[in-house]
Amino acid sequence: MTDFDGADVLQQYIDKCSNWGRWGDEDELGTLNHVGPEQVRHAASLVEHGLRVSVSLPYDQRGPQTGTLRANPRNVMTATGADHVAGAQEILPAGFGPAKGYGRSDDILIVPNQAGTQWDSLSHIFWKGKMYNGRSAALVSSAGAARNGIEKFAGQLVLRGVLLDVARHHGVASLEPGYAITVDDLEATAAAQGVEVRKGDCLLIRTGFLEVRRTAWGDYAGGAAPGLSLHTAPWLHERSVAAVASDTWGVEVRPNEIDCFQPFHVVALVHMGLAIGEIFDFAELAEACARVSRYEFLFAAPALPITGASGCPVAGVAIL
Amino acid sequence: MTDFDGADVLQQYIDKCSNWGRWGDEDELGTLNHVGPEQVRHAASLVEHGLRVSVSLPYDQRGPQTGTLRANPRNVMTATGADHVAGAQEILPAGFGPAKGYGRSDDILIVPNQAGTQWDSLSHIFWKGKMYNGRSAALVSSAGAARNGIEKFAGQLVLRGVLLDVARHHGVASLEPGYAITVDDLEATAAAQGVEVRKGDCLLIRTGFLEVRRTAWGDYAGGAAPGLSLHTAPWLHERSVAAVASDTWGVEVRPNEIDCFQPFHVVALVHMGLAIGEIFDFAELAEACARVSRYEFLFAAPALPITGASGCPVAGVAIL
Amino acid sequence: MTDFDGADVLQQYIDKCSNWGRWGDEDELGTLNHVGPEQVRHAASLVEHGLRVSVSLPYDQRGPQTGTLRANPRNVMTATGADHVAGAQEILPAGFGPAKGYGRSDDILIVPNQAGTQWDSLSHIFWKGKMYNGRSAALVSSAGAARNGIEKFAGQLVLRGVLLDVARHHGVASLEPGYAITVDDLEATAAAQGVEVRKGDCLLIRTGFLEVRRTAWGDYAGGAAPGLSLHTAPWLHERSVAAVASDTWGVEVRPNEIDCFQPFHVVALVHMGLAIGEIFDFAELAEACARVSRYEFLFAAPALPITGASGCPVAGVAIL
Amino acid sequence: MTDFDGADVLQQYIDKCSNWGRWGDEDELGTLNHVGPEQVRHAASLVEHGLRVSVSLPYDQRGPQTGTLRANPRNVMTATGADHVAGAQEILPAGFGPAKGYGRSDDILIVPNQAGTQWDSLSHIFWKGKMYNGRSAALVSSAGAARNGIEKFAGQLVLRGVLLDVARHHGVASLEPGYAITVDDLEATAAAQGVEVRKGDCLLIRTGFLEVRRTAWGDYAGGAAPGLSLHTAPWLHERSVAAVASDTWGVEVRPNEIDCFQPFHVVALVHMGLAIGEIFDFAELAEACARVSRYEFLFAAPALPITGASGCPVAGVAIL
Repeated sequence: MTDFDGADVLQQYIDKCSNWGRWGDEDELGTLNHVGPEQVRHAASLVEHGLRVSVSLPYDQRGPQTGTLRANPRNVMTATGADHVAGAQEILPAGFGPAKGYGRSDDILIVPNQAGTQWDSLSHIFWKGKMYNGRSAALVSSAGAARNGIEKFAGQLVLRGVLLDVARHHGVASLEPGYAITVDDLEATAAAQGVEVRKGDCLLIRTGFLEVRRTAWGDYAGGAAPGLSLHTAPWLHERSVAAVASDTWGVEVRPNEIDCFQPFHVVALVHMGLAIGEIFDFAELAEACARVSRYEFLFAAPALPITGASGCPVAGVAIL
Repeated sequence: MTDFDGADVLQQYIDKCSNWGRWGDEDELGTLNHVGPEQVRHAASLVEHGLRVSVSLPYDQRGPQTGTLRANPRNVMTATGADHVAGAQEILPAGFGPAKGYGRSDDILIVPNQAGTQWDSLSHIFWKGKMYNGRSAALVSSAGAARNGIEKFAGQLVLRGVLLDVARHHGVASLEPGYAITVDDLEATAAAQGVEVRKGDCLLIRTGFLEVRRTAWGDYAGGAAPGLSLHTAPWLHERSVAAVASDTWGVEVRPNEIDCFQPFHVVALVHMGLAIGEIFDFAELAEACARVSRYEFLFAAPALPITGASGCPVAGVAIL
Repeated sequence: MTDFDGADVLQQYIDKCSNWGRWGDEDELGTLNHVGPEQVRHAASLVEHGLRVSVSLPYDQRGPQTGTLRANPRNVMTATGADHVAGAQEILPAGFGPAKGYGRSDDILIVPNQAGTQWDSLSHIFWKGKMYNGRSAALVSSAGAARNGIEKFAGQLVLRGVLLDVARHHGVASLEPGYAITVDDLEATAAAQGVEVRKGDCLLIRTGFLEVRRTAWGDYAGGAAPGLSLHTAPWLHERSVAAVASDTWGVEVRPNEIDCFQPFHVVALVHMGLAIGEIFDFAELAEACARVSRYEFLFAAPALPITGASGCPVAGVAIL
Repeated sequence: MTDFDGADVLQQYIDKCSNWGRWGDEDELGTLNHVGPEQVRHAASLVEHGLRVSVSLPYDQRGPQTGTLRANPRNVMTATGADHVAGAQEILPAGFGPAKGYGRSDDILIVPNQAGTQWDSLSHIFWKGKMYNGRSAALVSSAGAARNGIEKFAGQLVLRGVLLDVARHHGVASLEPGYAITVDDLEATAAAQGVEVRKGDCLLIRTGFLEVRRTAWGDYAGGAAPGLSLHTAPWLHERSVAAVASDTWGVEVRPNEIDCFQPFHVVALVHMGLAIGEIFDFAELAEACARVSRYEFLFAAPALPITGASGCPVAGVAIL
């Protein structure tokens, strides 16, 4: 496998980190297997202040997408209060409607699953015809993912969260586009924050990039961005991390460090089966953690069980 | 107000239970105000077994909708593994694509917000031109809800959950369509289960109806159904319940008990500002609670912050 | 090729009728090549009465689809007059909006291309990995049809139309489900109507089935239906017919006559490259033709150039 | 009515040109009433060369929309040839599918009705709470237009077309943004082309603007543009023109000539009931007309009958 620059290191990480077969041939959870009852109990025990903080970007037309690859979420109204007030709403059973007082709104959401704050499913990325656990990519057809769809994460992703505020540790509003977060960065940030990474954790990696681009996204979706170095993959593997979420479009640094598109995903998502979250909004959480000097918490960001989907929008809440 | 049969009792409950102004003119949270740090800490302390149970129905074409009022969720693929395998996927930067190993799937979800497991927003129902906290229904236009939209619930709905398994208490697979769950039912079920209802709780009312209709929905969406009696509204108000979720299309009994369409919603959603959840799937949770003889737990069902929406799909997880 | 009952006759028709290569390797028009300037001029010369008749079913939620395979068209409003009247419409440049008089409506159509009156593209059906003109089916990926998409029909489908009112000829409101229209039926109907089939024609085959199912569709979409016999394919081929449109879901008789799904499509669409139209509404046209005793006319049913699509909604008008 | 600069001239044109009531209180056709059997017969008689030219822009993601007001058309595949080739397509009755040879593609179009080549309906614009024929704007609710919807144009818009190639007459590739086309321009262009405007015509006004922006749309959708002067409205009214289509986003010149948003629409669409077409692509037609020295033809651009819609995509064909 020498067909591109960096192919050898990629293959080395794949060989080292692959979890294919580790939890059986039928496994569709990947690293979420690291979260057992003990981890859940511990995560719940971290709630001290009773403080809840949302980490999801609102789903609307002001999101980061440009329409080239994906469009921003569009919520279209099929019944409105303006109709009700204008006497223009259809009549319900027993004559209910504007004349007799009752009105309602209703709507349809049209959302690329990966347009905003999101989890990737284990069917999202393929490498040489395969997806997580060695399954054929052909199992993901126009009818959806027959295996590894995001619905397999139902009931998961309530776990210990650890915010690694790399931007704050570096003393910047945002890491620069192209900045590759290293193992040293992660360890130094954790140490400075007085928190340790444990088996079954969800690491919330804050680059600050979403915050500085929020009102003028530019090429946020797909362009140069700070993010995890490919070379952090073995470290995440060794520590049995369950999930990684970040505040960028693609979690990993862009441009990519080797001559391969999104190589971290190839190692981590395809071979480790790592749950990867993107476009999370850590602004409020970073403030809260700094205020209470606490970077570990219960993290509830359950996956929406959309059958066969490549990912899902997610309502994430850190509970401190 | 004597324009329909039951108008007087409806008005009496409105007068008794209204929370308009209670938390200030700017309030958009309603009864979720009952959940403070103390309630959150207590909820987290309920996690004993480290057991997580999903209460969300999968979002797909096999859902309960008939297309008349709402369609079932539709996830459409915009990139597939079959494309990758067939060598038909577009080429990415540096020539990545089928030839060099990298492939991906992507998709768009088209989902009526209230098609499946869902939270109603406080902009979902109007009464005589007004919505919760006395706001004009005209604030909900084709552009969405300028006030009371579901995004105002961001970071909420992680709280104490109490399953009231009324079906099991009655010894039936499902309560009958048309059966109105009374205050006596709720109190007897709670007593039998050894659990008490507290301020800031989310009550999960199991009728069993979703389970018996799951493979043949019939008129599940909008037809006759068991559900809460209108007359439970004051009881919920007095106990400072924060949210109610059930396994039916509309939470309240159908046909309605008075000559008004969905009168419980008029009192509870419009006037109390009660968070109402519908089409939850309690099959697995009911088994788990019975197994561990425990009907209280941490309930994480955070609302997806869809700006201006009348409701949202929800990934709900009970953590016992 | 003996893998199903009828495989031999299917192959015989394919061999006899295939137009692959007939108009060059680059051809994407198929039998529409039969319509040249002479045919167009002649078609225009048929206009005598100046009478225009629509043959398209309205696109809305009352259509024939059940949601299982396809949903009915859904038009969702993104700006309304009710908003305007309620003073709830956003303000335009120079303060225009409700206060200064100007208002507007706007909307988004969500339509399965083959949900209602429609043309099939030559990328709609595959046989043994190939589509019209011998192209690989893999050219039709999630990104759409790279070849043979419906946009290749742009500017086409203005041609001579001939209504063959088989139902009226048989003296019935509708042919029965399962009734296979034969060459004899087509010839006898044409003779009785005093019209002849010519090169470059679009044949409008009326079974009456849409009209008797219009208010109670039942299994109209995909169930048993009257329609063209597979054995009419060579007759259409010999006469150089350009297009066939009918008032059923699939043009051809259902259940199919041989043990193959939609064998007429396999011969006619895949191999002849015949333009096939479905779910046309001939009720008004049948009345008009009978009234003026004329079954030939200018038929304008141009294809909507949706890039890469498998078909398109169509506004069809017969001009007598 | 003196609430903005130009209000008096606007009101004067409204008074002069209004067709409200002219064709009866129930009329929903507006100026299309000018097209009777005589006009249709004459239009058909104009076909000399048997030449057909499409004037519709392809519907796809490369269109002129930016997503701010409207998105470009999106066609999403629900079944593909890649699935078929990869053996990943669902099995049909009698085991048909990849193994036995049969495959299919299918798709869903998501299209803002006014995203590309389009007709406005007479419910698209309101003035002071009213739409064409004096109807209340409140008739256009979230459920669609109860009156004046685009489906009322079914079977219409097959008529005499006259290309007024103003750009060519001025000897430019495109008129400049902000250039207001006057009555003199229209008359001089018609004279130079040797064509006269008649009752019941559809005027195709070519500015050239679409052609110069085609590969770099910029602010084509809503920005400065050449177009009809407000002051052409009476001229169109006096000549009983049935429809006007142009190659810009909004037909009328932008910025607007008086201090009112889209005043030509207020006079022509709301009060005359004029059929207005936008984003037509006249590149090929302009060449064809110049080549054969003929600017009148049969124009077939029938409206797609989308029930209650504010407009529709359109497949337009000029037949010379």
